[in-house]
Amino acid sequence: MSAVFFSSRWVERPAHVTERPGRLAPGFRAAGVACGLKPSGATDLGLLVSDGPDTTSAARFTRSGAPAAPVLLCQDRCRLEALRVIAANSGCANAATGRRGLDHAAKMQGAAAMAAGVGEDLVAVASTGGIAHELPVDDVVRGIGAARGELREDGGDDFADAIQTTDRFPKRAALDVALPAGTVRLTAQAKGAGMISPFFATMLCFVQTDAILPAATADLLLGVCVKRSFDRISVDGQLSTNDTAILMASGASGVTVSPESEDELRFGEALDALLRQLGVLIVADGEGARRIARVIVRGGDERNVEHAARAVANSPLVKAALHGGDPNWGRIAQSVGMAVPGGPVPFDIAIEGIQVCSAGQAIPVDQAALDSAVQGSEIEYEIGLPGDGAETEVFFSDLSHEYVTVNADYTT
Amino acid sequence: MSAVFFSSRWVERPAHVTERPGRLAPGFRAAGVACGLKPSGATDLGLLVSDGPDTTSAARFTRSGAPAAPVLLCQDRCRLEALRVIAANSGCANAATGRRGLDHAAKMQGAAAMAAGVGEDLVAVASTGGIAHELPVDDVVRGIGAARGELREDGGDDFADAIQTTDRFPKRAALDVALPAGTVRLTAQAKGAGMISPFFATMLCFVQTDAILPAATADLLLGVCVKRSFDRISVDGQLSTNDTAILMASGASGVTVSPESEDELRFGEALDALLRQLGVLIVADGEGARRIARVIVRGGDERNVEHAARAVANSPLVKAALHGGDPNWGRIAQSVGMAVPGGPVPFDIAIEGIQVCSAGQAIPVDQAALDSAVQGSEIEYEIGLPGDGAETEVFFSDLSHEYVTVNADYTT
Repeated sequence: MSAVFFSSRWVERPAHVTERPGRLAPGFRAAGVACGLKPSGATDLGLLVSDGPDTTSAARFTRSGAPAAPVLLCQDRCRLEALRVIAANSGCANAATGRRGLDHAAKMQGAAAMAAGVGEDLVAVASTGGIAHELPVDDVVRGIGAARGELREDGGDDFADAIQTTDRFPKRAALDVALPAGTVRLTAQAKGAGMISPFFATMLCFVQTDAILPAATADLLLGVCVKRSFDRISVDGQLSTNDTAILMASGASGVTVSPESEDELRFGEALDALLRQLGVLIVADGEGARRIARVIVRGGDERNVEHAARAVANSPLVKAALHGGDPNWGRIAQSVGMAVPGGPVPFDIAIEGIQVCSAGQAIPVDQAALDSAVQGSEIEYEIGLPGDGAETEVFFSDLSHEYVTVNADYTT
Repeated sequence: MSAVFFSSRWVERPAHVTERPGRLAPGFRAAGVACGLKPSGATDLGLLVSDGPDTTSAARFTRSGAPAAPVLLCQDRCRLEALRVIAANSGCANAATGRRGLDHAAKMQGAAAMAAGVGEDLVAVASTGGIAHELPVDDVVRGIGAARGELREDGGDDFADAIQTTDRFPKRAALDVALPAGTVRLTAQAKGAGMISPFFATMLCFVQTDAILPAATADLLLGVCVKRSFDRISVDGQLSTNDTAILMASGASGVTVSPESEDELRFGEALDALLRQLGVLIVADGEGARRIARVIVRGGDERNVEHAARAVANSPLVKAALHGGDPNWGRIAQSVGMAVPGGPVPFDIAIEGIQVCSAGQAIPVDQAALDSAVQGSEIEYEIGLPGDGAETEVFFSDLSHEYVTVNADYTT
């Protein structure tokens, strides 16, 4: 794990949060093993268990109309507020697999329940990899059995490795969070948005804490923080079939985070910073990414603000210019025009604080300063639409030759 | 001009339409000159004039909220039903140029009106090229003067050349259309979607006929045919600031196309085939395009059908797979899921007539046949959503290394 998790200028480490690499939040054990799903023989099956019977949890899933079998199973057959176990595999998404895929996901759930000695409805399953392939469920079941024997308090990194695909660097964190009620630990493992087989990106994120966290609080905090992090990132604008984020609280610290307390506020700040930094890391690890960007849009119409931010973040022209270190803001103007149709919109544009467009019209700039400003690794675009009161942001990666190579040249 | 204009299997040449390369529709003269907007010295200023005082016309423009100055000028200050003249330049889009840009567009219009001896409100202007650059209007005015002396009945190709940018092949047609009332000529010149400077693509299309066409009929037919052609194509999902399509009818043939007549029907069929083939050519000439595709979506919900078609056509993952000759339909399933959210949608997918997915679930296929089917130059995807009654299509190009090269590596 990198010594510095909070590496982006866009995410501030709260003063009460300390990076301390090491073990999982107390109360959790994890393992990662190879069960044969990845042709490379790399680890591909992760098991995470909370030993506390009063563990609470919360979960969020993809909004795709083509949700993978594990997503459907979790939504239909899990007590999402009391999850004790996560079984996750890479190497196969178990998506577009119909009834048979659901059966396989259920077998995976059952095997993990048996391994951990808990009810099936307390086991979440998650998959990532190629879609439209049948899950080799017997291999998965054997892998879960093997992982059971490997469960360790310092198994978080192995678990994190097992859910990686083509990720170039790990996306995990281990934080101490000083609350008025005491210090709690917050650990997390995420994957994405590297390509899986040559299929599409999936975001998985699992977060553990030893705080005593009421399930309703966990749900509230996870919901708010996901909206401000994973909902605001884009590598290629493509919603996955498998996206899953799960927060689990073992209670092992004995420190209670009560609703509407200062502890809840501080814990929420820590979770927010954690997920936002993970989101930035996911974008930075987008296929072929060299530079990442944040677009901030302000204006009076919430819908226009959101549409403009998404249009800029998902424009292949803007993304290619970002990649090339090209301050070509005409493409930003074009994206905004596409997102906010119906006549001339007097928008402002600034790049790295240098205003280039006022009320829809180019203004004189120091071109050398502008050229230089877009050579960094994190570029910020600010867009002003008419009116006040609405603001949003999207983090996104660039469009590179490697993206095309990964997605076009490596055929199935 | 290619001997075969109707080259796509997706556009059938109507039996009463004959390709006959050669002069513009009678009544029109055109020219293309170099006025210095393109650093290469290539032609960059086109002038097209109808000599008939009773010329009728119709026009359609971009729906962008950041329309270029020439678009705004045409919409505000032209009699779009009676246009006699088109002045079009490449090398500068005159977009994001504010009040000064409007003044320049007006000067361009005034110069062309003087050159042709008609009122300014009968002159349409169009521009394509880099945005946020000031139009070198004095050069344009001089170019219009020079073009005036070059106007010829066989000047259509020069005019077409003058509006090209990085187009790899011309997009123009010259057809004879046999109507019950007599034979009329239909000629057209289009550009796009090659990149302009390294800015973004613009679609321009100008169509001439010597039929006597009531202005209301011209507007009706152009509207319907644009909806079925230029509105259904995507290179990179990016709406331009400058898109312009204009149909002009000189009446020189003496053949009248009356409303609701067999002549109108036949003329409409010819115009439809013309614009659809031009649309396919524009897609095929998208930056770096190697293969093009048609996605057809059918279902019961018009909005879902439209969203799914756009999502597939604009997915960088689908486009990269298309480029790579990869029958990776998981990306199609993912795009459809993104476009039609809110729970499992039982969709069907077929590629080149081979069904690969039924009710959201992979079905066994002859993989060798499927692999082979996606190696051609035109690939067809069919998607079935629940229900009946709605159907749409989008033509799109692939995502290639050359696209990234053009848009990232060639900086401004």
